[in-house]
Amino acid sequence: MNVMSMQRHTRKMPHSLPEGRAPLRRPGAGLPYLDAVSATDSMEHENQRLSAYEHQVKHAFDRIIPCVRKLAAIQYEEDFVPLASERIIDELDLTPPTDVLQKAWTRQLDVKQLVSHLTLATYYRFVSGVQHVNPLAHPQCADFVSFLADCGYHRMDITPCADGRLAHVIRYVLRLPAEVVRRKAYAGAAFAVEDNVAKWAEVELKRQQSAPGTNTKYLKVVAYHFSSIDGEREGCAAHGSDDRKAAEFGRDALLGFKNAVAQGFSRPDAVEGLLIGIDTATDSIVLHTPDLEGSIDIDSSLQSTDCVGMSSDKIRAYIGSYASHSSEGMQRLVSQLIENNLAQLAYVKTNHDGCYPDVGHAERFIGIGVGFDEIQLRNLMYFGYLTTIEEGAPDVDVGLKIFKGLNQSRGLSTPIVIRFDYYGSVAGARERAVARAGRVADALKSRYPDHFAAGDIHYLQLSRDLDTRAAPEFLGSNLPSLTEDNLS
Amino acid sequence: MNVMSMQRHTRKMPHSLPEGRAPLRRPGAGLPYLDAVSATDSMEHENQRLSAYEHQVKHAFDRIIPCVRKLAAIQYEEDFVPLASERIIDELDLTPPTDVLQKAWTRQLDVKQLVSHLTLATYYRFVSGVQHVNPLAHPQCADFVSFLADCGYHRMDITPCADGRLAHVIRYVLRLPAEVVRRKAYAGAAFAVEDNVAKWAEVELKRQQSAPGTNTKYLKVVAYHFSSIDGEREGCAAHGSDDRKAAEFGRDALLGFKNAVAQGFSRPDAVEGLLIGIDTATDSIVLHTPDLEGSIDIDSSLQSTDCVGMSSDKIRAYIGSYASHSSEGMQRLVSQLIENNLAQLAYVKTNHDGCYPDVGHAERFIGIGVGFDEIQLRNLMYFGYLTTIEEGAPDVDVGLKIFKGLNQSRGLSTPIVIRFDYYGSVAGARERAVARAGRVADALKSRYPDHFAAGDIHYLQLSRDLDTRAAPEFLGSNLPSLTEDNLS
Repeated sequence: MNVMSMQRHTRKMPHSLPEGRAPLRRPGAGLPYLDAVSATDSMEHENQRLSAYEHQVKHAFDRIIPCVRKLAAIQYEEDFVPLASERIIDELDLTPPTDVLQKAWTRQLDVKQLVSHLTLATYYRFVSGVQHVNPLAHPQCADFVSFLADCGYHRMDITPCADGRLAHVIRYVLRLPAEVVRRKAYAGAAFAVEDNVAKWAEVELKRQQSAPGTNTKYLKVVAYHFSSIDGEREGCAAHGSDDRKAAEFGRDALLGFKNAVAQGFSRPDAVEGLLIGIDTATDSIVLHTPDLEGSIDIDSSLQSTDCVGMSSDKIRAYIGSYASHSSEGMQRLVSQLIENNLAQLAYVKTNHDGCYPDVGHAERFIGIGVGFDEIQLRNLMYFGYLTTIEEGAPDVDVGLKIFKGLNQSRGLSTPIVIRFDYYGSVAGARERAVARAGRVADALKSRYPDHFAAGDIHYLQLSRDLDTRAAPEFLGSNLPSLTEDNLS
Repeated sequence: MNVMSMQRHTRKMPHSLPEGRAPLRRPGAGLPYLDAVSATDSMEHENQRLSAYEHQVKHAFDRIIPCVRKLAAIQYEEDFVPLASERIIDELDLTPPTDVLQKAWTRQLDVKQLVSHLTLATYYRFVSGVQHVNPLAHPQCADFVSFLADCGYHRMDITPCADGRLAHVIRYVLRLPAEVVRRKAYAGAAFAVEDNVAKWAEVELKRQQSAPGTNTKYLKVVAYHFSSIDGEREGCAAHGSDDRKAAEFGRDALLGFKNAVAQGFSRPDAVEGLLIGIDTATDSIVLHTPDLEGSIDIDSSLQSTDCVGMSSDKIRAYIGSYASHSSEGMQRLVSQLIENNLAQLAYVKTNHDGCYPDVGHAERFIGIGVGFDEIQLRNLMYFGYLTTIEEGAPDVDVGLKIFKGLNQSRGLSTPIVIRFDYYGSVAGARERAVARAGRVADALKSRYPDHFAAGDIHYLQLSRDLDTRAAPEFLGSNLPSLTEDNLS
C-alpha cells in the first residue's frame, strides 16, 4: 500500500474544514494500513469534501447573474436601493455598491459594472476567507514531500495551460498539495524558460544550503490538454485545438528548460521533465514519461483510463511494463499520479456522470500576475502567470478572446484580477509588488485601449503578503465602486 | 606596490591593439616590480592607448554630420549618387545606402534617415570589428579576479546611471576589466532588485559548484553622478540634479538588494554594497564604503582628488584612517580604485586639461537591452539595461528626453540600438533573444507612437552569441535602408 494513498490524514499543514463537514481525523484514520474498504471510504470522503468546496465557490459566482437580473427588473421602483442592497447582502453575502445602485433611477442600472463589481468582490471574499480555513489543504503535505524525495525529486512545479479548465490540475486532477506543488500557467503551456531557470537556480541554491550532499532533481511538469468531446473545437486554443501540436510543444519546452540548465550551469541531470495530457471533458490523464536521458516520446503514453479498477500493485505493474524506459523513481511517481487521478475520475463520475456538462469555456474571470494559489477550481479562472503584459501578452490575448465569447457577447465586461504576491519578510518586496501591479494595469490599458474605452475590462489590483494569513491588500480598480471599504 | 598597479601586462585574455599602436608586451613589461618611473610610463602608455581608442571611435561618429552636410549641399547635382557614395566610403568607411541617395533628386535628400542610418551602421562596424581585436582589453584580467578574491569578493557588478557620461565608468574611470566587471545601467541607477537577486543566485550557485567551501561575497556597486561644473543642471536627470537624492537613492537600492538576499536566502552576509559618486565633469570619484554591517553613510566619503600625487602606500594609509569602519578587504579594494582613478584624472588632465569640454549630454545614440559590452566610452551611448519596455520605460523616457534636446531640436532622429546578447551554447537562447528584440521593438512603437509617426526614432535590432567572436546578428530595423547586406 502506497504512502500516497488516501487513507492517511496526518494533516501536518494548518487547515480546517468548511462548515458542516465532518473532521477527517476520525478514529483510526491515522493508522498507516487500512483495508481496501477504508481506502475507498476515505477517497469518497475526500471527494465529498472537494465537491462541497467546488459547489460552494462556483455557486457563489453563479448566483450573481440571476441576482442582478432580478435587480434589473425592479430598478425603477422607489425603494430600489434598500431592496437591492438587502438582496445583495442576503443572496451574495457582499457589501452592496450603493453608488451604483443609487444611480439606477436616473440613468438605468449599470449592469455591466454591477456584475463585474460583484464578481470581483466575490473573488476577494473567498480569497480572504480561505487564508484561515484553507479548505483545499491537502491532508498529506509532508508525506508527499518525502514521497517525492524518495522518487528522486526535491521540487515539482507544474505549468498547465492558462485555460480555466486546467486550473484544478494540481489539487483535483492529480490530487497533489498546492502548498507544495506550484502552478505557473501560460497559454498553450508555453512557459518562459529564463524565468524557470532563475527559479531553478533559487531552489537549487536553497537545497544545497539545507540538504547538502543530496542529489535529487527538479521535476518540471507540463500539462497540455485536449477534449474527448468536441475535440476539434474544445482543445487548446493556443495550439488551434491541435492535440499533437500541443503535446509536441510541451515536450520541446521541457527539453529547452532542461537544456538551459544543463548548458548554463553544467548540470545535465538537474532537471527532469514530465509531460501530462489532460482530457478536459473527463479529467482523465495521459502521461508521457522521460527515458533515462530525459527524452520524451509523445507517441508512447500511459492512460489513467486503462487503470480504472486496478489496485495500487496492479497500477505499479502496468507502469513497470509500459514505462520501463523511465527511472524507478519516475515510475513510482506516475503510478501514484495515476492512482490519484482515479480518485478524480470517480469524482467526475459521481458528480457529473463521468463527463463535465461544461465541456467548453465557462471561466468567471481572468487572473494575471503571480499568486492565485487559493482557489484551484476548474473553469473558474483563466490564469496567466506573468510579470509584464509585454511578455505575457499572448496569455492575455487568448484570455480576452475567450471572454469575448463568454461575456462580451452577452453585454458583460471581462473581470480581471491583477495580483502580485510577495514575501513581506523581504524588505522592499511589497513596494515592488505594488509597483508591478500598477505597471501591469497601465500596460493593460495601453495594450487594449478599445476594451477600456468600451468598458469591457474591469480590473481589481491585489497583493498579498505570503508570510502572513492576512487577506490580500486592495491596491486599486478601474471600477470606482470597488474600494477597500466595501471589500472588507 | 599593488597587484593592480599599471606596470604589469600579462594579457591573459585574448585581445590585440588598434593598428599603429605599439605592443604592450615590450621587454621588461612582464616583471612584477618596476620602479616608479616605469609605473608612470606604463600609466601614460595605457592612457595613450585608451585615448587613441576614444578618439578613433568618437571621431568616426563625429564625421557623420559634416559628411552629410556636404552631401546635402550637392544633392541636386547630376552625379550625386556616385559622388555621395564615394564620400561615404572614403570618409566614413561605410557601405552607402544607395536607395536613400537615389531618392534625393526627386524629393530632397532624407537627411534624418541618412544620419540615423550612418550612425547605426557606424556602431555596427565598431561592434563587429572589436570582436577580434578587443581594443579595450584589460591587461590584467586574471590578476584583477584574484585581487578581488583576496579582498573577499568573487563577483563585482556595477550599476551606473544610464547617462552616457557614465558609460566609461568601468574601463576608464575605475580602470577595471569590462570582461569581468559587468555593467547594468538604469536611469538614476535605480536597478531592479529582483533581477539582481536572480543574477546573484545564479552566480552563487556556480561559485558553490566551482569553489565550494570558500566564503567570498558578491560586491554590488552603484555609481551615481554629479557635476562640479554647472551642477544644478548637469547632475542626474532622473533625480532632478539633486546630488544628495541621487546618493541616498543609491544607498537605499544597495540596502534593498542586500536585504532581499539576506531575507530571501537567509544569507545576511552574502552581498556587500559600495556606493560611488562620479563627477561627470572631471571623472573624479567619491567613495562611500560600508561598515561591517553593510551600512553606508553618505555623509562620510573618500575623495580621489584628495589623493592626487600620493603613492600606493600613502593612499592605503589615507583609506585606513578615513574608512576604518570598513573591512580590510574593502579598504584594499577602494585604495586600488582610487589609485586607478588617479590614472583617469591624469587622462582627463592630459586630454582635456582636467575638465571635459562636453560637460553636458552629447550621446550619439541610445542602447537598450542586454549586451553592449564592447564600447565603453564616455558620452557615446545612453544605455538602458532592460528586458521589457514595460519595466524599463523610465530609462527610455529619460533617454528620449535627452535626445529631444540633442537630436530632435536640430531636426534629427534618435538612433536606438535594441540588442539582446545570449550564450549560443544554451539551446533556444538565440530564439528567445530574437523574440525579446522583437517584443521590445513592438513595445517601443506602442509606447511612443508620436515619435514613430514623426520619424523621430530609428532603431536597429541586434543580437550576439557571446560564445563566439562573430559580429552581432542583424535582426531588423525600421529604416528600410538598413539591411544585413549593407551592414556587413
